Amino acid sequence: MAALETCPPLTRPSVIAARELIKSHVHLTPVLTNSTLSKLASTPQTLEDTRWAGAEPAKPVIRLWFKCENLQRIGAFKARGAFHAVERLKKDENWVREGGMKKGVVSHSSGNHAAALSLAARESGIPAHIVMPDISAPPKIAATKGYGANVVFSGSTSQEREAVAEKVIKETGARFVPPFNHPDIMLGQGTLGLEFQEQVEQLQAARQNGAAAATNSDAKKRPGLDAIVAPCGGGGMLSGVALSCEGTGITVFGAEPEYQGADDGKRGFEAGKRIESVKTLTIADGLRTQIGEIPWSVIYERRLVRQMFNVTEEEIVAALRLVLERMKVVVEPSAVVPLAVVLFNEDFRRLVEQEAGEAGWDVGVVFSGGNVALEQLGKLFAS
Amino acid sequence: MAALETCPPLTRPSVIAARELIKSHVHLTPVLTNSTLSKLASTPQTLEDTRWAGAEPAKPVIRLWFKCENLQRIGAFKARGAFHAVERLKKDENWVREGGMKKGVVSHSSGNHAAALSLAARESGIPAHIVMPDISAPPKIAATKGYGANVVFSGSTSQEREAVAEKVIKETGARFVPPFNHPDIMLGQGTLGLEFQEQVEQLQAARQNGAAAATNSDAKKRPGLDAIVAPCGGGGMLSGVALSCEGTGITVFGAEPEYQGADDGKRGFEAGKRIESVKTLTIADGLRTQIGEIPWSVIYERRLVRQMFNVTEEEIVAALRLVLERMKVVVEPSAVVPLAVVLFNEDFRRLVEQEAGEAGWDVGVVFSGGNVALEQLGKLFAS
Repeated sequence: MAALETCPPLTRPSVIAARELIKSHVHLTPVLTNSTLSKLASTPQTLEDTRWAGAEPAKPVIRLWFKCENLQRIGAFKARGAFHAVERLKKDENWVREGGMKKGVVSHSSGNHAAALSLAARESGIPAHIVMPDISAPPKIAATKGYGANVVFSGSTSQEREAVAEKVIKETGARFVPPFNHPDIMLGQGTLGLEFQEQVEQLQAARQNGAAAATNSDAKKRPGLDAIVAPCGGGGMLSGVALSCEGTGITVFGAEPEYQGADDGKRGFEAGKRIESVKTLTIADGLRTQIGEIPWSVIYERRLVRQMFNVTEEEIVAALRLVLERMKVVVEPSAVVPLAVVLFNEDFRRLVEQEAGEAGWDVGVVFSGGNVALEQLGKLFAS
Repeated sequence: MAALETCPPLTRPSVIAARELIKSHVHLTPVLTNSTLSKLASTPQTLEDTRWAGAEPAKPVIRLWFKCENLQRIGAFKARGAFHAVERLKKDENWVREGGMKKGVVSHSSGNHAAALSLAARESGIPAHIVMPDISAPPKIAATKGYGANVVFSGSTSQEREAVAEKVIKETGARFVPPFNHPDIMLGQGTLGLEFQEQVEQLQAARQNGAAAATNSDAKKRPGLDAIVAPCGGGGMLSGVALSCEGTGITVFGAEPEYQGADDGKRGFEAGKRIESVKTLTIADGLRTQIGEIPWSVIYERRLVRQMFNVTEEEIVAALRLVLERMKVVVEPSAVVPLAVVLFNEDFRRLVEQEAGEAGWDVGVVFSGGNVALEQLGKLFAS
């Protein structure tokens, strides 16, 4: 990873610069809408059997926009941060002079970050060493090798993985590229927010040209998105998206599973400080980690994220079913947590009703990835 | 259904006219590409354990284009034929004078045609009576009612369903709208072929503008699609697509499951006459029926389809897995039968190698629909 002192400041212009750096390497992923889901989001829900039982259901008006990072390279937004990290390293003269291009990069991750880093390194001819638990599923190991990585096995605890990564660094001189706790990663992930903003404005303009007269309430409000809801695991993407929205008037919210305390962001907001450790087995497996220190400084300390919302495992599965059945796109459980917030979290829905009124809000939802094993989907929906 | 003698001739201009009639009612569905799948299609396969064991694997060069009718209204191409049938009926002065708009339409189908006809009728304020077996899955019944149809139950054999449909017609005066064996349905379905042709030419042109110089072999061959492979059940869509390609130089192929004789089209080509009855439980449940007489007259008697190819159940499941995992779009088993032909049917692959040579072919594959129960996907991929 580029040395911290060489990193650009955590600002919207730095996200714009990151976009220039990676745009020939990543897909401009599509933005989709779905009238069934927008209608559902704008219909008051039944609150029996929920934690809001007895309350009057909120009546928000919500037009949904979906940023499809499940269609990104390697099937997840992580490609953005990884390519940005590698491109930034290549601009680090010290690293290059010291033979960095031959020593390579290293990370300990068995998920989307490992695939993304392997791909980004391979495209620049740089070796990638990926430390994976020796109990990893064979298809996952094969996939990481398929992206050209040198897979190094370790035990399955995070201590064992970190120890092996240290050993690899000592032996090879490879540079560690963390999955989220670094400005280059955050700025790279934030590029999806810039695209999202522009794409929604373009799509709205095209629709208004198509319509004889503006038939919805778009005319009454500012164009573009009013809010973005993004999933939050380590916070690299949420913080990057928040930076991409700074000064635009778009409000950014974070979405987390609540299962076994996976909502460390929400709890951190309430406690006024970062929760330093999380241990959860939520099905949203991309969101099991605690928020990193640098993302937290943007999300909470600079208040660039307004609020965090959580959802239950059942709500995640219900949202997953809706996306697969109605939108016909494949997403991983972590990716639908923001949609679950919009559809099922009454605190969020009441906030939209109160702030947006009848004009409603254009709410952008980030589909973060689509790498779900069909066997897992099978188990979820077999009965 | 409009009386046969009032139907437009089965020609490409009639498909163009159909498109005008329905274009405000149906989605212009996207065309996708996927470099992983194009690469796979252009890689010689291993023939051990296949019916081509021992032969030299073909080396075709194939660039794949996918027409996503799984993203069509009601989740399948059937919306096109149903809207065309209803729009044509509304132009039938006799039908309107005799109170057709109040008497409504009727069909016996529990699948995509039922949903499509119900939606098309509702948008014109026409009642739709749908005869369904009383053993139909409750979600399917709920979905059909959800589109505003009057659901009438029958026994589960086709004779029992037809008898109940006859009874409904006698009692209500509703007009029968068959799922495929009618020119209006065929011409409606064919509209997807026109869109496909235009979209691929536009996408190719955009890519060539983007590239400094043509880097692939596109420049050596005519622009646009060289071939379209479409699934074939009753043949309404395959015949319509074939009509849309007449005189364009695009070769049309049909794709069928071979399980339990579902490949009646292929067998009919070999026998020189239509197979009149099929009984199969292939997982490609949209393709279980025999080809209708009117589609057959276009497909075989006029030779507008060059050849039919079949695939095994295992090949269908393998193609389904690839589409879900790599393309991240949800399709039903019937929808991937053409892709299975392209990837796994050595007769097709050898034909492409021989006719296209090194320049290769741009092959269009129709994803016919995306209405698959998650429970079914679960069972397919749970183990």
